[in-house]
Amino acid sequence: MKFGGTSVADLDRIRNVAKLVKKEVDRGNQVAVVVSAMAGETNKLVKLINDLDPQYDPKEYDTVVASGEQVTCGLLAIALGALGVKARSFLGWQMPMKTSNMHASARIEGVPPENLNACLESGTVAVIAGFQGVAEGERISTLGRGGSDTSAVAVAAAIKADLCDIYTDVDGVYTTDPRITSKARRMEKIAFEEMLEMASLGAKVLQTRSVEIAMQHRVPVRVLSTFDPDAGGTLLCDEEDIVEKKPVTGIAYSRDEAKISLMKIPDRPGIAAAIFGPLADAGINVDMIVQNVSDDGKRTDLTFTCPRTELARALKALEEAAEAIGYREITSDANMAKISIIGIGMRAHPGVAQKMFKTLSEKGINISVISTSEIKVSVLIPEEYVELAVRALHSVYELDVA
Amino acid sequence: MKFGGTSVADLDRIRNVAKLVKKEVDRGNQVAVVVSAMAGETNKLVKLINDLDPQYDPKEYDTVVASGEQVTCGLLAIALGALGVKARSFLGWQMPMKTSNMHASARIEGVPPENLNACLESGTVAVIAGFQGVAEGERISTLGRGGSDTSAVAVAAAIKADLCDIYTDVDGVYTTDPRITSKARRMEKIAFEEMLEMASLGAKVLQTRSVEIAMQHRVPVRVLSTFDPDAGGTLLCDEEDIVEKKPVTGIAYSRDEAKISLMKIPDRPGIAAAIFGPLADAGINVDMIVQNVSDDGKRTDLTFTCPRTELARALKALEEAAEAIGYREITSDANMAKISIIGIGMRAHPGVAQKMFKTLSEKGINISVISTSEIKVSVLIPEEYVELAVRALHSVYELDVA
Repeated sequence: MKFGGTSVADLDRIRNVAKLVKKEVDRGNQVAVVVSAMAGETNKLVKLINDLDPQYDPKEYDTVVASGEQVTCGLLAIALGALGVKARSFLGWQMPMKTSNMHASARIEGVPPENLNACLESGTVAVIAGFQGVAEGERISTLGRGGSDTSAVAVAAAIKADLCDIYTDVDGVYTTDPRITSKARRMEKIAFEEMLEMASLGAKVLQTRSVEIAMQHRVPVRVLSTFDPDAGGTLLCDEEDIVEKKPVTGIAYSRDEAKISLMKIPDRPGIAAAIFGPLADAGINVDMIVQNVSDDGKRTDLTFTCPRTELARALKALEEAAEAIGYREITSDANMAKISIIGIGMRAHPGVAQKMFKTLSEKGINISVISTSEIKVSVLIPEEYVELAVRALHSVYELDVA
Repeated sequence: MKFGGTSVADLDRIRNVAKLVKKEVDRGNQVAVVVSAMAGETNKLVKLINDLDPQYDPKEYDTVVASGEQVTCGLLAIALGALGVKARSFLGWQMPMKTSNMHASARIEGVPPENLNACLESGTVAVIAGFQGVAEGERISTLGRGGSDTSAVAVAAAIKADLCDIYTDVDGVYTTDPRITSKARRMEKIAFEEMLEMASLGAKVLQTRSVEIAMQHRVPVRVLSTFDPDAGGTLLCDEEDIVEKKPVTGIAYSRDEAKISLMKIPDRPGIAAAIFGPLADAGINVDMIVQNVSDDGKRTDLTFTCPRTELARALKALEEAAEAIGYREITSDANMAKISIIGIGMRAHPGVAQKMFKTLSEKGINISVISTSEIKVSVLIPEEYVELAVRALHSVYELDVA
């Protein structure tokens, strides 16, 4: 079981979580619980750190922010004790949750299950601090924002759990963001591959890395609401376990995209390296890329996207490399969004992308970049059209609730 | 260097501490810094725990409250980094600060100095989380309230520090509490033995256990003000290093004392065991004890003191043991205080105690219990006379500032 920050935001909610855990124990299950920091705590600590020094040592950043989950897991163990449930807390270094040395965004390298198994087999609930691990030199590491989902799935894989229940503030994975359309529908099931695309294309319900691990280890993950645990939830499962494969099962979006176009660059081998090398060095996360067909075989245009917050740095890096690249002009737009349609059924249904382009065109929405994979199509559009586009596509692909 | 909670209460104060540390580094010193939690944090965490379950598991209590020092030591390491000073944090388990398994009030068992020494020798400031250690089974332990002083002295002893500077919100150890008399004087030096009595008899400037360790390992401890570090401070030193040995060097007091009298108990062997056995079982901290001379060889009265907060429990334990003890009546008074005069010079000056009794008598203050050692005299008086008694004694023993 994993509970996010809003689920443990205060003592009443922690007591409520303890009751949900007790219910599982009373059913005869061995339970490991992963918790996030109380809502707001991590942001508060990050602010203190940034106020002191934005160039902080990430090892110390991790030491400070990991305290949030430490508090919650101790408190939940105490709340369980108050209900007569045997429980003990595990911090990242106590499990141990071994990670890489990339502090502040470490990757899990392994969870030796001996300590956790000994705890579970003694009839004790293991209450685990999410988000944190231990890196080289016994230093505390953290997995990056939202990392508690990943902790939970990695623990579930390590102890070979029958089920990994991710309790959150929504009651499952929806066909799209219910804040954009009330016609969004909760899915009973979603294939790992679809969930991976949904998460990486903007759906915030699960951290992308957690879905990767779930897929890799075939961990049955269920997304449930802490506040309405009987609502049903959504089960992540193998593609084969999904009977009716619609062409599109979900629509994701991501605001905060920026677009940069380099005009009239030389159409020669090595030009991509000349552009994206400096951007990689500057730590820019380049996403979609499109290069126009050269009209004269000499000069062409190239457009790519990056997170809006990285736009200024990206432009600076490109200007510094202007001579090596040889572009005539740079244009950029900070107000873009990415809309994606996702579905494993897409493989068997031709014309899915075409329907998307037609629908957006009919609404007068201009598409500047397109990127596709076997089970998704993403398009870049002006941010102001996000709601309109999502609602239109949700309806056209027959995802609206009856 | 050790900094308490008020010295690291917010980011500005943490920056100020970083500056004080940098000053020592710039002087060419290797520095280890021990920090407490930001003022108020520990109380906040303790309240959360008690609200959940007053019968909490002390192991989980320790996991939760240790997070306070974890935050501060990470933040101070970052603040030092911002000043260009190389620094890294050490949590209790990382040093390791090995302690007993008495969670929530663990005793330090040893600090293997290898990790700290390696850090210092690499020219890096070791920023240490006070108050916390690691007990059996790699569980986090804490040393009890005020334990950061003890952490600091234990670390100083382990790394054979030349000096252990305890920075606090007062500029040294005073002849008595300056809030009671403005004539209280800061001492340049105080003998370990005197400081031990002062601390255990109510002076709050240092935790008693820290003075014990300093005395045992001959760690030169200096008490200084964070906010006025050049004010001079007080040095704890060997008795031999103090030239002028006044009969009384300090006056301590402790409010919140309670007195219990058992009237007409049988004057027979084993009666003390019959009384104090049940009190020990109930966890009552009995302090001063006086037994009257029996007038007829058959029945006598016995009076003892305990902390006011334990009075109700003490009376309950005694009532349950009424038959075994055989007292005729119990009386109690919850409004008592203990006043103590302390000085190593007392050994060489007879009549010091007599002067105390006479002074209090002249002020009309009734003494109900007396307890003495080689270098202190303590008396129990009604709490309302504390200020009067302290001021009178401070003057009579020539401690007033000129």
